Amino acid sequence: MAIKNAFYAQSGGVTAVINASAAGVLETARAHPDKIGKVYAGRNGIIGALTEDLIDTSAESAEAIRALRHTPSGAFGSCRYKLKSLEDNRREYERLIAVFKAHDIGYFFYNGGGDSADTCLKVSQLANTLGYPIQAIHVPKTVDNDLPITDCCPGFGSVAKYIAVSTREASFDVASMAKTSTKVFILEVMGRHAGWIAAAGGLASSEDCQIPIIILFPEVAFNQEKFLAKVDHYVKQYGYCTVVVSEGVKGGDGKFLSDQGLRDAFGHAQLGGVAPVVANIVRDGLGLKYHWGVADYLQRSARHIASRTDVEQAYAMGKAAVEYAIAGHNSVMPTIDRTSSSPYAWKTGMAELSKVANVEKMMPADFISADGLGITDKCREYLAPLIEGEDYPPYKNGLPDYVRLKNTAVDKKLDEFKI
Amino acid sequence: MAIKNAFYAQSGGVTAVINASAAGVLETARAHPDKIGKVYAGRNGIIGALTEDLIDTSAESAEAIRALRHTPSGAFGSCRYKLKSLEDNRREYERLIAVFKAHDIGYFFYNGGGDSADTCLKVSQLANTLGYPIQAIHVPKTVDNDLPITDCCPGFGSVAKYIAVSTREASFDVASMAKTSTKVFILEVMGRHAGWIAAAGGLASSEDCQIPIIILFPEVAFNQEKFLAKVDHYVKQYGYCTVVVSEGVKGGDGKFLSDQGLRDAFGHAQLGGVAPVVANIVRDGLGLKYHWGVADYLQRSARHIASRTDVEQAYAMGKAAVEYAIAGHNSVMPTIDRTSSSPYAWKTGMAELSKVANVEKMMPADFISADGLGITDKCREYLAPLIEGEDYPPYKNGLPDYVRLKNTAVDKKLDEFKI
Repeated sequence: MAIKNAFYAQSGGVTAVINASAAGVLETARAHPDKIGKVYAGRNGIIGALTEDLIDTSAESAEAIRALRHTPSGAFGSCRYKLKSLEDNRREYERLIAVFKAHDIGYFFYNGGGDSADTCLKVSQLANTLGYPIQAIHVPKTVDNDLPITDCCPGFGSVAKYIAVSTREASFDVASMAKTSTKVFILEVMGRHAGWIAAAGGLASSEDCQIPIIILFPEVAFNQEKFLAKVDHYVKQYGYCTVVVSEGVKGGDGKFLSDQGLRDAFGHAQLGGVAPVVANIVRDGLGLKYHWGVADYLQRSARHIASRTDVEQAYAMGKAAVEYAIAGHNSVMPTIDRTSSSPYAWKTGMAELSKVANVEKMMPADFISADGLGITDKCREYLAPLIEGEDYPPYKNGLPDYVRLKNTAVDKKLDEFKI
Repeated sequence: MAIKNAFYAQSGGVTAVINASAAGVLETARAHPDKIGKVYAGRNGIIGALTEDLIDTSAESAEAIRALRHTPSGAFGSCRYKLKSLEDNRREYERLIAVFKAHDIGYFFYNGGGDSADTCLKVSQLANTLGYPIQAIHVPKTVDNDLPITDCCPGFGSVAKYIAVSTREASFDVASMAKTSTKVFILEVMGRHAGWIAAAGGLASSEDCQIPIIILFPEVAFNQEKFLAKVDHYVKQYGYCTVVVSEGVKGGDGKFLSDQGLRDAFGHAQLGGVAPVVANIVRDGLGLKYHWGVADYLQRSARHIASRTDVEQAYAMGKAAVEYAIAGHNSVMPTIDRTSSSPYAWKTGMAELSKVANVEKMMPADFISADGLGITDKCREYLAPLIEGEDYPPYKNGLPDYVRLKNTAVDKKLDEFKI
């Protein structure tokens, strides 16, 4: 087999551990110079490939690549750019192949969620049709935890840990203050379609540290009466309560609860989160004092409290992607296969991309408690191992010492391409 | 000197390290059984003293007391309850003395901010007048960092570290996404009167890791034109920018910027934070895509990323309070005296409560940059040592193993007291 270069790109929303996958890809590729030449990264994801804006990762030191393992976000830049279907935009796919051909790229490693799995598959199919075969391997990544076949998705475990830890800490705070002040704390978390991240808030309460937590899932239509009754019950029993609300929670009318048609004093439409809406419902319905927070980007970039399990899995997926490519596989995605929950054990598996693309894994119904406001033991058993272990980054002057790469550009060989 | 019991209470908003001060008080008191008998804690702060709802801390194991050092929030409960002036409510002060007398309490350790320093002083003064002398020692605590004389306040360093770390992490995130998605991230932080916490966001950017950060201080009237010009400049230069906004920032009209008179579709008044208001200003003024977060309680309860300097100082203040009491001092507060910034060095000092009560330390004007939107080198030199070092709590099943005390009640000896 001739030595070929490789292309690696990060896609969609970044995570605390997507760079750990990058480290897995790059270190493993470097260990196989007989198979893989240079690894080029796309600057700002797939846009870098389309515009031939490639980064020469061979210019980075081994230390810098190693430091990616503890650095959050996308070191080469990511993008939200969905390639259209082959029928609608064959031009873009053909351009990708042209760029790969110009730079002697035989391996395509695409690190993303469901959309990028689909792109990855199409690139591989079209490359065959055009007579320039590319081995396309998808590296799973998404805080949404919604890829099929794999037991979980790198990026999710660290968000889950951040939300569980933060929910526990904020609950301790409100418990201290409840006698004369705040009685309800509301934390808004990510998850427009699925409640995986909100569910992680439930882990904050454990057998040896019980906390009254209510979870509002996007899967369950918001029922104001039931919600207020449970808040009231918890506050009477415990003196306080914590609410973890998914940004995607909807009312009975199917509209996002966050979409309240807010207007400022001049009548201008204002965008708000769902946390202040839930806070207002608590105030108006029960007259209780509240505080609310919105974790937003903090939750998915919090490498400082990443899950060790997640970091290890993210790295392993990048490593396996390269190993699968070298072994001749194509149109596949490495997966995390759980072999036991307690004690937790997992191994690296492999899924056909045709079975991954365009399939969204939702929360199983039996992960949500009967009243729709909490998690079941089955959910807890699934989630608990994913937040196991800490993997602290190094610190310098009190701050995490995250790496920034040189990101040296590769000389262009083709004409400009407008996207 | 006869052996006397002691009373300890936590006051006002809790912090990530107020329990470390409690550990300092309790462990030091236990080391002096020849001077101090039992330490009673007020359940829910001073309310516990007024209602004779005392907690017998001698029922707690040495391990539990030790674990307070790594547990956030107020282990005995805190309260927002300001005693009125002696003239307006002499009854409450007399009740405090009566409770102390009934339980043979000779030491009063009050762990709080400016208001509690004032209360502490008055208790000591009135006790003298009533012929039942109490040694009243104030243990400094406030995330607002606004107590005078002491160089900094326990609780602040850990919030500062949390905000600096989170701002750096979220900035890495938005930098990755900026090409096609979010260009401005806005983080709302605490600080209604002083911009100390917002200033800490500026530490996220350092010489070896430059980040375009704009800070909106409560001390500086919001100037929309200047603000938008700077956002625009940063986004053009760096591709993105991060805004750290203090909840207390005010417009030129002196009104809180968060107070936008928001109405929902039914015309009901809605409470929002300042972050979405700033986000709307960025959207309307520059048309840039944004995300926003509100740290709220997460920032002051985040023991998982506490500053080691802060933990050590919080403990030292509790320890010194007891040592000062044993040495016969009264109406004083231990202080943190900085002897050098680089390398950082500090020692424990002592301040007269009469000089602490009712004095608020504001941010010096020369800590804010000339354009009002950032911090100066002088501010950086002051803040940097306060976030130095990590002090991780132990973990169990992926979550911090925080202690909950037994909080055994002491038998009441007096009649009921209505507050």
